[in-house]
Amino acid sequence: MRNQQFAIRPTAPAQALDELQRIHFLDEKSADLSTPSLLLQDLYDRSWPEFKTPDVIHQQLANLMATPDTDGWAFLSHHDTVPVTVFYNLALQRLGFAVDLDFKLADPLAAMAKIQLPVADHAGNDFTIAELKQAWYHLLTTHSKNGQTFLDQLTTHGYFEPLVHDPNVDKPLIFNGKSQAVFDTTQLIREVVYVESAQDTDHDGQRDLLKAEIIRPAETEAGLKVPVLYTASPYNQGTNDEAGDHMMHNVNVPLQPKQPNDTTLADVTAQPDTTPVPAPRPVTATTKEAEQTFAREQSYTLNDYFLARGFAVVYAAGIGTLDSDGVRTTGDPEETTSTIAIIEWLAGNRTAFTSRAATQAIPAWWSNHAIAMTGRSYLGTLATAAATTGVAGLKTVISEAAISNWYDYYRDGGLVIAPGGFPGEDADVLAEETFSRQLQAGDYHRIQAKWQADLAAITHDQDRATGNYNRFWDARNYLKHAKNIKADLLLVHGLNDWNVKPRNVNNLWNAVRDLPVTKKLILHQGQHIYINAFRSIDYTDIVNLWLTHELLGVDNQAETLLPNVIIQDNTQPETWHAYPDWDAPTNPTRSFNLQHDELVDQQTHDPLAYATSFNDQLPVEQYNRYTHDIAAWQNDLLGDKHNAMFNHRLIFKSAVLTDDLLLDGKPVVDLRVAVNQPVGMLSFQLVDYGDAKRLGVSPTILARKALDEGYRWREDDLREFQPAATTPFKMITKGHRNLQNRTNTYHVDELKPNAFYDLSVTLQPTHYRLLAGHQLGLVIYATDFGMTVRGNQDLQYSIQLGNSALHLPYLAE
Amino acid sequence: MRNQQFAIRPTAPAQALDELQRIHFLDEKSADLSTPSLLLQDLYDRSWPEFKTPDVIHQQLANLMATPDTDGWAFLSHHDTVPVTVFYNLALQRLGFAVDLDFKLADPLAAMAKIQLPVADHAGNDFTIAELKQAWYHLLTTHSKNGQTFLDQLTTHGYFEPLVHDPNVDKPLIFNGKSQAVFDTTQLIREVVYVESAQDTDHDGQRDLLKAEIIRPAETEAGLKVPVLYTASPYNQGTNDEAGDHMMHNVNVPLQPKQPNDTTLADVTAQPDTTPVPAPRPVTATTKEAEQTFAREQSYTLNDYFLARGFAVVYAAGIGTLDSDGVRTTGDPEETTSTIAIIEWLAGNRTAFTSRAATQAIPAWWSNHAIAMTGRSYLGTLATAAATTGVAGLKTVISEAAISNWYDYYRDGGLVIAPGGFPGEDADVLAEETFSRQLQAGDYHRIQAKWQADLAAITHDQDRATGNYNRFWDARNYLKHAKNIKADLLLVHGLNDWNVKPRNVNNLWNAVRDLPVTKKLILHQGQHIYINAFRSIDYTDIVNLWLTHELLGVDNQAETLLPNVIIQDNTQPETWHAYPDWDAPTNPTRSFNLQHDELVDQQTHDPLAYATSFNDQLPVEQYNRYTHDIAAWQNDLLGDKHNAMFNHRLIFKSAVLTDDLLLDGKPVVDLRVAVNQPVGMLSFQLVDYGDAKRLGVSPTILARKALDEGYRWREDDLREFQPAATTPFKMITKGHRNLQNRTNTYHVDELKPNAFYDLSVTLQPTHYRLLAGHQLGLVIYATDFGMTVRGNQDLQYSIQLGNSALHLPYLAE
Repeated sequence: MRNQQFAIRPTAPAQALDELQRIHFLDEKSADLSTPSLLLQDLYDRSWPEFKTPDVIHQQLANLMATPDTDGWAFLSHHDTVPVTVFYNLALQRLGFAVDLDFKLADPLAAMAKIQLPVADHAGNDFTIAELKQAWYHLLTTHSKNGQTFLDQLTTHGYFEPLVHDPNVDKPLIFNGKSQAVFDTTQLIREVVYVESAQDTDHDGQRDLLKAEIIRPAETEAGLKVPVLYTASPYNQGTNDEAGDHMMHNVNVPLQPKQPNDTTLADVTAQPDTTPVPAPRPVTATTKEAEQTFAREQSYTLNDYFLARGFAVVYAAGIGTLDSDGVRTTGDPEETTSTIAIIEWLAGNRTAFTSRAATQAIPAWWSNHAIAMTGRSYLGTLATAAATTGVAGLKTVISEAAISNWYDYYRDGGLVIAPGGFPGEDADVLAEETFSRQLQAGDYHRIQAKWQADLAAITHDQDRATGNYNRFWDARNYLKHAKNIKADLLLVHGLNDWNVKPRNVNNLWNAVRDLPVTKKLILHQGQHIYINAFRSIDYTDIVNLWLTHELLGVDNQAETLLPNVIIQDNTQPETWHAYPDWDAPTNPTRSFNLQHDELVDQQTHDPLAYATSFNDQLPVEQYNRYTHDIAAWQNDLLGDKHNAMFNHRLIFKSAVLTDDLLLDGKPVVDLRVAVNQPVGMLSFQLVDYGDAKRLGVSPTILARKALDEGYRWREDDLREFQPAATTPFKMITKGHRNLQNRTNTYHVDELKPNAFYDLSVTLQPTHYRLLAGHQLGLVIYATDFGMTVRGNQDLQYSIQLGNSALHLPYLAE
Repeated sequence: MRNQQFAIRPTAPAQALDELQRIHFLDEKSADLSTPSLLLQDLYDRSWPEFKTPDVIHQQLANLMATPDTDGWAFLSHHDTVPVTVFYNLALQRLGFAVDLDFKLADPLAAMAKIQLPVADHAGNDFTIAELKQAWYHLLTTHSKNGQTFLDQLTTHGYFEPLVHDPNVDKPLIFNGKSQAVFDTTQLIREVVYVESAQDTDHDGQRDLLKAEIIRPAETEAGLKVPVLYTASPYNQGTNDEAGDHMMHNVNVPLQPKQPNDTTLADVTAQPDTTPVPAPRPVTATTKEAEQTFAREQSYTLNDYFLARGFAVVYAAGIGTLDSDGVRTTGDPEETTSTIAIIEWLAGNRTAFTSRAATQAIPAWWSNHAIAMTGRSYLGTLATAAATTGVAGLKTVISEAAISNWYDYYRDGGLVIAPGGFPGEDADVLAEETFSRQLQAGDYHRIQAKWQADLAAITHDQDRATGNYNRFWDARNYLKHAKNIKADLLLVHGLNDWNVKPRNVNNLWNAVRDLPVTKKLILHQGQHIYINAFRSIDYTDIVNLWLTHELLGVDNQAETLLPNVIIQDNTQPETWHAYPDWDAPTNPTRSFNLQHDELVDQQTHDPLAYATSFNDQLPVEQYNRYTHDIAAWQNDLLGDKHNAMFNHRLIFKSAVLTDDLLLDGKPVVDLRVAVNQPVGMLSFQLVDYGDAKRLGVSPTILARKALDEGYRWREDDLREFQPAATTPFKMITKGHRNLQNRTNTYHVDELKPNAFYDLSVTLQPTHYRLLAGHQLGLVIYATDFGMTVRGNQDLQYSIQLGNSALHLPYLAE
């Protein structure tokens, strides 16, 4: 195991002592203890909340080894001093590390160094009393083998239980810059309100009411104002999975030629909706009491963690979902308006009612008006959307695996490009899947006709026929409004996320680079996952530091302590690096020419004018097999040049690299290409060739239910990316382009059969370490069985190698 | 979906009304309601505990459809009558079934029949008031789409919340013969005690103290005596996984010839341990208060379900585990003594202390002295072990996937036979893995030398060299004591469990068939899994009915209502059949001769004297591949006769079956066999040949966290066996035999090279429907890559077909 913590706040010794008192590890009694050994015994006494008498506590100490020959109780009861090695022998065992397996009792400091656990300052071989207190402070912030701080581990064993109902304890309780779990999760208050939105998307003559589920600490009843984590999740009231499945589009259809046009940016720019909005409902009565509660929300473990720590959590599914008004729109401005309506209510700027009858208004009287949004995928997307409005009260968004432009989710380069794993899905399918009003037959009966018409309009407007950018997509491009962002940003994305592709976070990062807000970025090696239960990085602590700063206003150095960019290493397990930026405009570029299926450095070889070609059409059996087994296609695509894909794609490999190459940014392929018909597309994959044990893109569950989010509260599984079996290659990144969209995604260019055209394609951004001894590969092909249409057309593509090149931004090391 | 419920207790109408009053669905107010419609509205009003005002409750009714055109609120507020179709339209929606997808509003009764949901009696098309009350009673016992009763579904939404703290509510509260969730799971009391066992397995001069974790309802503090579910789990204090992995035995070793012997049954009969036991510790003080609690036990969802329903739960890991005294023994009588010590304490017949210092005794003063054991695998094994002692207080055991004889777990027919999936595991490995005292370095330091000696003795005594039955294994054969069983039995096992093989449950079933206890058996199509979260069978309700009868003494017809044997159908999903018995001695037998790789009916063909042969030795590359990919070996073994396994095994297939054949019991293979060296073994698989979509042996998770075990309590995932892709064959059952153990498992016979010997091998028991159109197959081979040693020896086996036959017990239909 290798531990990496970014959120340990450096703390002055005096403040550390003060904080230890606040959390009851030091008090008047400890001030009287005359030796380091007595102090350490006292600290340990306090650290075993499940044991009630000295007898059983000493038994626990006797179950730890202090030296290779002496147990903890025997040692401390016979010595006044606390050698540093004894302290860390005991500490490592408390942190869950196993004697002999993880460390040797003869040399605990070697293990501390190897695992990357911090060792406190000490002038001699023994801790003084003053040093020991600081060492204990540091130990509480140190991660256990379970990937929790020691203090969080103690929390799960009930350490804070006596403080929960102690009126002398300040709430929130801050330790090392982070809010602690002193709130009683068995007493959480759950209530439902209906927020009145500023629109009427189902055109029933009344503003849409939107259901919101609120969970807040019981302490709010006594007047505590709390910050809010708000997750907008269209899935969270249920989904229409079967109806969505039925709507999936057939992708085994040919790519169609497009009529060239002169479409301009103005032609595809969405216009604001000017439909008049009905007046708000009159407010005749106001109450603090809801009429409706709920047994169980669809929860998110990161939110659960903060429920134990004094944050309220709000879930809302938005227009068109179960118990709300309106219709689904898959990301258009109406959905954004719906999303921020909840924030406006939480910030005191909008009305909510206790029921859909709207007879009584109910304010968010318990809110401190500081709101963060959280969530992954569509949930993170709506957080991003909300941020681009600059809505008041939204202090920060934590957007994980979020879409920044729906064109980049369902389209690319004038092509219909499916999110990985979901061929045939489109904006209309997602609208139908999330239209959970359908789950209540009585409600659906009243809206069915309107909904069917709206859904048909989405199907029409998304325009699968051309794949072009148009007003439909422009309305769903949040990047246009990035300049309005006022919330601080914590962005998280997987470099192997081929569902919401990395371009989404890259474009947003580039759009906000110069905005006057604080922004942080974490890139991991996973696919479309969340990372808040990983062992090797203190993500939950990072978020706690961040939110304690953003929402509770604690000056905890979050802005400066956290690196701008944290990126997980793709070659070493459990390794995360800090960087000042990602895809910086100043990155140098290295270019390669293409030469008879080889990649050669531009500096060392003359460009040659060869044309080389491949045909996209496969034998029917092979084609059918790939349509049912996309992994097999991908494996053949990148595999041996002379396998079943021979002559159906081109593979160019570089010389074996003599030094590591750290790609960072957006690779660009320049090509001169011809096709034998007036229709065509090209796809590209950049590949790391070389035998290696690579990280799996799905994390391994190390221990089920190992992480309690509080004390006897909800639980998460501990995870980690682990090296999988040796593989001969790995795709680094990819890209796609319709040959009729050489200019941009909306202007359709002519395409004459067998005429050569220049094409420049920007691939999805990446950050990837290519190891010395490996080869860089570029694979050029057409049909992408996982993402494009699959017409199996007789299309012969020719490429003039002399006019083609690959350009790679990288980080100089 | 197809619903099957075995635990709906038939209830007389008057009692149904009484029970509806007890759970607050009927009261004086409902007696005044003058029309069926008003009554149904009132019942619905009470069924939405999350909604507090008439406004929001009526809204819920308006979200359901009563007829194809009218919602529930519109209908009921405008009609006096309740048509049967309206009742079930509303009911189906409440049960989670979707309009149009699962049923049509025009004909709900068709769906009720198809899904197998019970329809209440009705004289006309409308329910009378009296009929309606009975219909509501039935509806509460009916399973929802989530595989919970409607009442359990209401429970998860908080229906019983007002009853939890209502002093007028009787606890336990019984409805339809089953205990209901009226206990507050946020107030459960958790405490640790140390039970003094009647032995000293670590020979430290003091009786072993055994840690037990207790969870009991807070109501016990006010004097309620409660029954106990006790799970003995050696895993539950942690395991030494890495140490266990290191101890795994090498299975790539040759099978060794054995010296013929004249061993008798007496020679291998274990002798009772006569070592004197130290005197009990003196009891000088007694308390009702524990010194130690715990934050979180390793829980078992079935137990969690009953914690909400007024049962206490106790977990204990036994001798040699963390915080307990003693050493691990893997199933010998000392472990049984350790297991029942906890029961003796719970029944008031043994001392426990509040700590290992043993200064204060603590009785189980809150126990009603009625105890059940629960658990799967090793846990169920210890339940079986405990039952065979006849210990007082143990009313019933629910043994899931339990071992009945450790020889049948690690050995078979004079061979070392691994549990499926764990080649190289043995009794010593399991002892090391579960010796969790090792997890506390301080405690381990004190016991290490003794433990290493004990472990070496296990390694020696288990005798991997011969694989013979001996005194070591005889001491671990619970079947010898089956006649002592006094507890009623609920046995559950997977017919595809190749970890704990079906022989274990079969031998126990046969041993108790004539004992004067109630016994029930459930056989499912899974492997080594538990079935308490399945949708198609009401397993949790079955257990509730069973335990409410066994531990609370409620006369609820559990003994007669539940079928003796329930077996899941292997050809139809979601189908379970009731049978009077399994493997009944009276089953008829059908026999097949072997003929040149074919199976022919004995009646229709003359026996022939052919000898046919195969060689067990594989090319090295093929051998190496199979050692790393056991699934590939298994697939080749049963696959095309002429594939890579050609001449390395024999495949005999029957004629295509013209009728279904329902195998039930233990197939027997009679063979005349020779081998070219003085050593040899044979393995057998009975195979179903024929293309079919078969059930997967691992269940599919239908919905995560869908099943709350109470109200805002712990959650389980909803599961089901689902048909997987079409496969050409499936193994039905298998068996193994050392050719030197032709007589029995301890007597070693001589084996001359190339001499023919008669051999009769009983395969693992099964229950399997072979469909008409399929072929029965018998595959004869030697090395079993998943279970036997894999020496890749040059062993040529010859079989005289004329003297060989297959005998199959079956159920006549």
